[in-house]
Amino acid sequence: MSASGSLDVVVNALTAALGEDLVLSGQAIERFCRDWHGDVTTGAVAVVRPRTTAEVSAAVRAIRTLGLTIVPQGGNTGLVLGCTPDDPTRQVVVSLERMTSVRRIDADDFSAVVEAGVILSDFKDRVEEAGLYFPLALGAQGSCRIGGNVSTNAGGINVLRYGMTRELVLGLEVVLPDGSIFDGLSTLRKDNRGVDLKQLFIGAEGTLGIITAVSVKLMPPAEKVATALVGLAALSDAIELYRRARRDCCDLMSAFEFMPPVAFTLAQEAIPDLAMPMSADYPAYVLMEISGSGLVDIDDLMQRFLEGVMEDGLVLDGVIAASRGQAKSLWLFREGMNEGQAKRGAHLRTDVSVPLSRLAAFVETAEAAVMAHLPDCTCVSYGHVGDGNVHLNVLPPGGLSAGEVQQRIYAAKSVINAVLDDFAGSISAEHGIGRLKKADFLSRLPAVQRQLLTAIKQAIDPDWIMNPGCQLNSDTDS
Amino acid sequence: MSASGSLDVVVNALTAALGEDLVLSGQAIERFCRDWHGDVTTGAVAVVRPRTTAEVSAAVRAIRTLGLTIVPQGGNTGLVLGCTPDDPTRQVVVSLERMTSVRRIDADDFSAVVEAGVILSDFKDRVEEAGLYFPLALGAQGSCRIGGNVSTNAGGINVLRYGMTRELVLGLEVVLPDGSIFDGLSTLRKDNRGVDLKQLFIGAEGTLGIITAVSVKLMPPAEKVATALVGLAALSDAIELYRRARRDCCDLMSAFEFMPPVAFTLAQEAIPDLAMPMSADYPAYVLMEISGSGLVDIDDLMQRFLEGVMEDGLVLDGVIAASRGQAKSLWLFREGMNEGQAKRGAHLRTDVSVPLSRLAAFVETAEAAVMAHLPDCTCVSYGHVGDGNVHLNVLPPGGLSAGEVQQRIYAAKSVINAVLDDFAGSISAEHGIGRLKKADFLSRLPAVQRQLLTAIKQAIDPDWIMNPGCQLNSDTDS
Repeated sequence: MSASGSLDVVVNALTAALGEDLVLSGQAIERFCRDWHGDVTTGAVAVVRPRTTAEVSAAVRAIRTLGLTIVPQGGNTGLVLGCTPDDPTRQVVVSLERMTSVRRIDADDFSAVVEAGVILSDFKDRVEEAGLYFPLALGAQGSCRIGGNVSTNAGGINVLRYGMTRELVLGLEVVLPDGSIFDGLSTLRKDNRGVDLKQLFIGAEGTLGIITAVSVKLMPPAEKVATALVGLAALSDAIELYRRARRDCCDLMSAFEFMPPVAFTLAQEAIPDLAMPMSADYPAYVLMEISGSGLVDIDDLMQRFLEGVMEDGLVLDGVIAASRGQAKSLWLFREGMNEGQAKRGAHLRTDVSVPLSRLAAFVETAEAAVMAHLPDCTCVSYGHVGDGNVHLNVLPPGGLSAGEVQQRIYAAKSVINAVLDDFAGSISAEHGIGRLKKADFLSRLPAVQRQLLTAIKQAIDPDWIMNPGCQLNSDTDS
Repeated sequence: MSASGSLDVVVNALTAALGEDLVLSGQAIERFCRDWHGDVTTGAVAVVRPRTTAEVSAAVRAIRTLGLTIVPQGGNTGLVLGCTPDDPTRQVVVSLERMTSVRRIDADDFSAVVEAGVILSDFKDRVEEAGLYFPLALGAQGSCRIGGNVSTNAGGINVLRYGMTRELVLGLEVVLPDGSIFDGLSTLRKDNRGVDLKQLFIGAEGTLGIITAVSVKLMPPAEKVATALVGLAALSDAIELYRRARRDCCDLMSAFEFMPPVAFTLAQEAIPDLAMPMSADYPAYVLMEISGSGLVDIDDLMQRFLEGVMEDGLVLDGVIAASRGQAKSLWLFREGMNEGQAKRGAHLRTDVSVPLSRLAAFVETAEAAVMAHLPDCTCVSYGHVGDGNVHLNVLPPGGLSAGEVQQRIYAAKSVINAVLDDFAGSISAEHGIGRLKKADFLSRLPAVQRQLLTAIKQAIDPDWIMNPGCQLNSDTDS
C-alpha cells in the first residue's frame, strides 16, 4: 500500500470513530497547516474539530488508538510554530475553533468561564457588555483564541499592570493525553489545596494536554485613560522615567512602551498620512498610559506627573492625547512601526527579556554588536520597559537575495543571543518555545531543568503523543 | 539492639556524614517537633540545620543514604502540621533557620534574592531600608520564614491587591529529592520558556523538594495609607460595598476585611482598655484600607468614596483614621479579635473560600446550620471579602470538658464542610493541607486530580522521601 493509501485508511478510521462532521482532510486542512507569518506550510493526517469537551476526549482516545499524535490548535496565531504540525504522516491537528461558548460571566464574582475556542476580542466585547474588563491585549486579538492564549501564557501590552495570562487564570478544564478530563474550572480567588496542577498546563503549549475551557479574573473597566507620548535624551532616561512613574502613578500605569526614532519613519512607511505628533529628533520615545475607574482623576495625575519630570529635565518634550481619537493615533505609531517593518521584507524578530536594571545596557551592547558584524542592517529596538521585554529586531538592507537576507538574520540572531546570555536574559519573553525556538532553548537548558521537564512529560504523557517536537524532544529523538 | 540504640547509630552516622555542628538530637530538637498552636508534640530522628545550599544538598543525600525521610521546616508557624514530623523513627527535620542571607536587593530592578530562612519581617525591614516594599503581611511575620511562605503559598491581608505569595515569586532555588540543585533564581518579569517549573514547588509544602532561596518582586512603598472602619446593615451590604470600592478605588485598595459585631467583644476581652471607635450595634463591619505612593491623593479618595456610599445608605456609620496611630488602633480590633478567640480556649478555626458572589449566602447558611446543630456555640465569621476567604470559627461555651469541646469542634467542622461542598468552596483558602487537612482533602479529591498529583510526586520524588504523609499518601499507605 502506498503512503497516501495508508493515510486514507487512517483518515477513514478516524472518521468512522468520530463522525464525518468532525474530521477534515485533504485540501480542507491547508489553513491549519500554515503558520501565522506564512513562513511555513506543511501537512497533517487530518484535522479534528470537536464541539464539546466530551468530543475532545473522544478525539484524543481515537487518535491514540490509531497510533497517531496530536497537535492542539487554537487561533493558529502563534509565532514559534507551537501549533503548526510538521509530520504529515503521524500528526492530527485538534482544532478548538468550534468550542466558542462563553459559559458564564459573573459580574458579581468578577469572573468568567469561557471555552478554549472563543476569539479573544469577542470575549473582551462580551465582558465589556457586562460592565467589566478582561485586560489581555494582543496584536492578534481578533484571531487568537483563549485556549491558545493560556497554553502560551500570552503577554501583550497590559502585562505591566495585570500580569501575563497566568495571573488572569483562575481555573482550567483540560483533556489529558489518556482522554480523561481534568475538571478544574473553579473561580475561587484563594485555594491552597496543595500543588496547583493548573499551573503545569499554562505555557505548556499543548504538550501536556488540551485546554478546553478556562475560568478567568475580570477587572473593573478602565473608564478613564490618559495617554502620552514623550521624547527623551536616551533609552536609559526612559528606564529612569519608568522607575519614577512606577512610584508616582502607583499601580495605575497600564502601558509603558519605549520606541526608537526610526519608529516614526517605519510607521509612516506603513501609514503615509500619519501626522507627526512631535519632533522625531529625540533619541528615545515612550508611549505611556495611565488608566482607572471611579474616583481617581486620571487626567490630572498624568498632567502632574509629566510636569514634574519635564521640570526635572528627564523628559524633553511630550504630548498628552486630548481625546480617545488622539490616543488612538498615538498608538498608531506603535502599531504602524510593526507594519512598516513587515513592509521592509524578511527580518529578524526577537522577543527577549533581561532584568529591568540592565535593559538599557543590554540594548546598547546588543545593537553595537549587531552593527559591528552587520553594518548594513538597521536595528529596531522597542518594547515593554516595565517587563524588561525588548523586541530587538534587525532589518537587512533592500536589494539582497533571499539567501543573503537569511544569512543576515541568522548572523544577527547569533550575535544577539550571545549578548543575551551575558545578561542572563531569556530568549523568549512572551512568544514561547514551540518548534522554532526549541534548539536555542534546549542548548541553554541546564541538565537539572531538562531532567525535571522530561520526568513531568513522561509522567503525564508517557507515550509522548501530545504535540510531539514542541518544546522537548523525546529520548529517541534527542 | 533496642529502638533507641538503633536510633543512636543512625544519628551517629548522620553526624559523621554532615559534621557535629549541623546535627541536633535528643532534647535539643523539641522546639522543632511542636506545632505553632502547641496542640501537637512529637519527635524526629534528628534535626539538620544546614547553612548553605550545598549543605542542604549534602544533608538530603546523607539522609537518603541512611534510608530516612525528610521534613523540611522554616519558621515552624504553619497551621496544618505541614512541617511537623510525625514519625520519630524515620523522619529527619531539615531546618532552614540558618540560611538567613538576603543575597541581593536591587532597587532599580524592583527585585530581591533572599534565602529560605530569612524571617519575613526582617526581610520587609531590609526592603524598606532600600526604599521599597514587600507586600506579604501575615500575623506570624515575626517568626515565619520566606521559604515556608513560598512552600505554603502564604496569603495574608494584602492578597486583594498583590496576590498570594505565588504572584510575588520570580524565581526559586530548590534542592531536589536526589540532592541535585534546581537553580532558577532569575529576576526576569517575563520569561516564557516552556513549562514553568517553579510553580510546582510553590504550595507543595516541601513534598517535592526543599526551597533554599527565592527571588521576589518588590513594590514602591505605600507612602500614604487611608484606613476606615464602617458599620453596615448586613454582610451582603459588605459584599456590595466591596464591589463598589473595587471600581471606585481602582487598584488602590490594599485591605477589605469584614468582621461581625462580636469582634468588639472578643477584642476587648483580649485588650481591655481598647476604646470603641463607634457603636457596636451594626450587624456587620468592614475595615478597609486604600494606599498608594506619589501623586494620588489617597485621603481625598477615601473621603469621597465614603461620602458617596453613606449618601446612598449603603454604609450606616464610619470613622476614618486621622493618623497612623489611629489606623493602628482600628487594626487592633482585627488582631484583638483573634487573641480574644484564643483566650476563650480550644475552638474550631476554619479557613475556607467560596466564589465572591456567594460569600454572604455561604456565611448565612453555614452559621445557621452550625446553630441548628450546636445551639450553645458562638460563630465568629470574618475574613478577606475580595478573596472570598472566610474564617468561620466556632467557639464552644465555657465549662465543658476537653472531650465535649473536641466533640463540638468535630461536629461543627462536619456541618461547615457539608455546606461548603454545596457552595463549591475550598477547605483551605490559605493555610494549605499539611497533615491536618489531608483526610478532608483526599476524600474530596477527584480521581483525575489524584492520579496527576501522584504521577508528579512519583516523577520527582520516586522514593517518597520528601515530607512523607503531607498532602498525599504513598500507595503503600493509602
